[in-house]
Amino acid sequence: MKIIVDAMGGDNAPDEIIKGAMDAVSEISTEIILCGIGEEILRVFERMGHSDIPRGIEIVNASEVITMEDDPSTAIRTKKDSSMTVGLTLLRDGMGDAFVSAGSTGALLSGATLIVKRIRGIRRAALVPFLPNSGRGFYLIDCGANAECTPEYLLQFAFMGSYYAESSMGIEAPRVGLLNNGAEATKGTQLQLDAYALIDKASRDGYLNFIGNVEAKEAVMGACDVLVCDGFTGNVFLKSLEGMASLLMSELKGIYGSSLLTKLSALMIKKRIMELRARMNPDTIGGTIMLGISKPVIKAHGSSKAAAIKGAIRQAAAAVEADPAPRLQANIEHMKIDSAE
Amino acid sequence: MKIIVDAMGGDNAPDEIIKGAMDAVSEISTEIILCGIGEEILRVFERMGHSDIPRGIEIVNASEVITMEDDPSTAIRTKKDSSMTVGLTLLRDGMGDAFVSAGSTGALLSGATLIVKRIRGIRRAALVPFLPNSGRGFYLIDCGANAECTPEYLLQFAFMGSYYAESSMGIEAPRVGLLNNGAEATKGTQLQLDAYALIDKASRDGYLNFIGNVEAKEAVMGACDVLVCDGFTGNVFLKSLEGMASLLMSELKGIYGSSLLTKLSALMIKKRIMELRARMNPDTIGGTIMLGISKPVIKAHGSSKAAAIKGAIRQAAAAVEADPAPRLQANIEHMKIDSAE
Repeated sequence: MKIIVDAMGGDNAPDEIIKGAMDAVSEISTEIILCGIGEEILRVFERMGHSDIPRGIEIVNASEVITMEDDPSTAIRTKKDSSMTVGLTLLRDGMGDAFVSAGSTGALLSGATLIVKRIRGIRRAALVPFLPNSGRGFYLIDCGANAECTPEYLLQFAFMGSYYAESSMGIEAPRVGLLNNGAEATKGTQLQLDAYALIDKASRDGYLNFIGNVEAKEAVMGACDVLVCDGFTGNVFLKSLEGMASLLMSELKGIYGSSLLTKLSALMIKKRIMELRARMNPDTIGGTIMLGISKPVIKAHGSSKAAAIKGAIRQAAAAVEADPAPRLQANIEHMKIDSAE
Repeated sequence: MKIIVDAMGGDNAPDEIIKGAMDAVSEISTEIILCGIGEEILRVFERMGHSDIPRGIEIVNASEVITMEDDPSTAIRTKKDSSMTVGLTLLRDGMGDAFVSAGSTGALLSGATLIVKRIRGIRRAALVPFLPNSGRGFYLIDCGANAECTPEYLLQFAFMGSYYAESSMGIEAPRVGLLNNGAEATKGTQLQLDAYALIDKASRDGYLNFIGNVEAKEAVMGACDVLVCDGFTGNVFLKSLEGMASLLMSELKGIYGSSLLTKLSALMIKKRIMELRARMNPDTIGGTIMLGISKPVIKAHGSSKAAAIKGAIRQAAAAVEADPAPRLQANIEHMKIDSAE
């Protein structure tokens, strides 16, 4: 397996990206293509004491870098020789099996759509973080790629999330829930009402295991394996969880600190809450998969250090194994509500 | 001041409602009208050892009770002699200054709109809980009364929340934020884009202090005094906070329990998190004000015991003092985007 890695994306590029890639080569049986400014990459290897390019790693040169200041929707086109554009092109051309970048989410999303392309018939790609709950965790789809959605997008998200949860979590018939403001089928805005009908029909036809509407609280408490919503609501959901974790962290500071013993307890609980908070933050999750693209694309968080990059590469390798694209392609007819494309 | 209380609404009616009302009479300088089945109310007084109706309390008879099984949108019309219908009618007719009920939220919302009426020109009433953050707290408007909103509703929510925060929190020019999936003015769906323009104009015209878009996390961390959103998003926001608090509570159970000392620490932290969680839950907040109605209506949580009812009555008394209705009425022209009504 060969994973293409954007060596120039993220706050700690290229040093931490390259370190993470090297760790991945030695710990996971995968090869890496590092995409980026060749001279800079070589200089990092030199600093690390390597006189040659380490085994299992290739470099593909790219002269430009997409930064957070670039317009996400046009950067891919205006910076044709950027590490992201070059990396996605390698993925499209079959030179690697998956692409990992810690660069701009918006640029990665439009680049993946423009270059690697969506699965034929899939209307929109979605960002799908894996979140903690009181059980084995769950996928949130979409968490912010598409603020405005149609019922058909949500139907497709349900399929995408279900197939990916099944292959990546190894569970049969994952429980798919629709995020809503109540459990009854009559809840929500027109979007939820229409999406409910579509997903429910797909479930009754045997393609999905739809458990109906799920409230935000129940989702966190483990009600479903896949939580479907538009990207606007997904963002509010995720950021609320993160906010509450942060609020509790700051409250803890007030509670503890009175004695050495309570300080020790505080350290224990703080660590756990920080872990949970980190897992709630799409920017600090090792990697978030982008579903709906014809090949696996993983967004690593912008502030990734070596360990997080290694985690994202590991996730990319898992996504290659669990790639839902062929199954989605084979079943695309059940995810359409009209013949237009 | 005289507060009308629905003696029959909620899980613990009428006993706990009546106890709470009696405590309010003795602790707050207010009179109470108890609305409900007279015989049952008298029997509660008897059980409490009173041979007569206690001082400061009046009873107004109502022969029916709206239950959670009744359809919220029609119950007010079909049960014309219910405690809720009678109580709201007393409020409309000036027999009291505010109304408190722990009964069905939906029925109370439609009853308040039908009987007491909205402020002339206000399109929709909203549920406005006061939530904890890292600072002095903030109002969320709307938290579930209106799943589907127009930009004009959100403009009106901004005014309603701002006026109420100013009078009830005693702060000048409360910071009004629009809940969105990013801070930039270009974020959100068409609803947020249009609402942003309207609220921003009102702010530039000097009627409001709009601080722009606020992400869910920043709202929890204290970014604004009033957080404006549609009721669908408000519900997801609130339930996510509650879910995260519950998840952390269940995580804590796993962390602690290994020794007596950690058990003691666990008790301290548990209490604080439970308090926060309770404050996040609209069903366990002492009372949530309904804004946009021409007179103060307070929803007490369904599982209210005496202390919570007393709290809701206290909040009703505060709402009478802080009533934003006259100011909203006087400024209604700035909250309209067309002449239709």
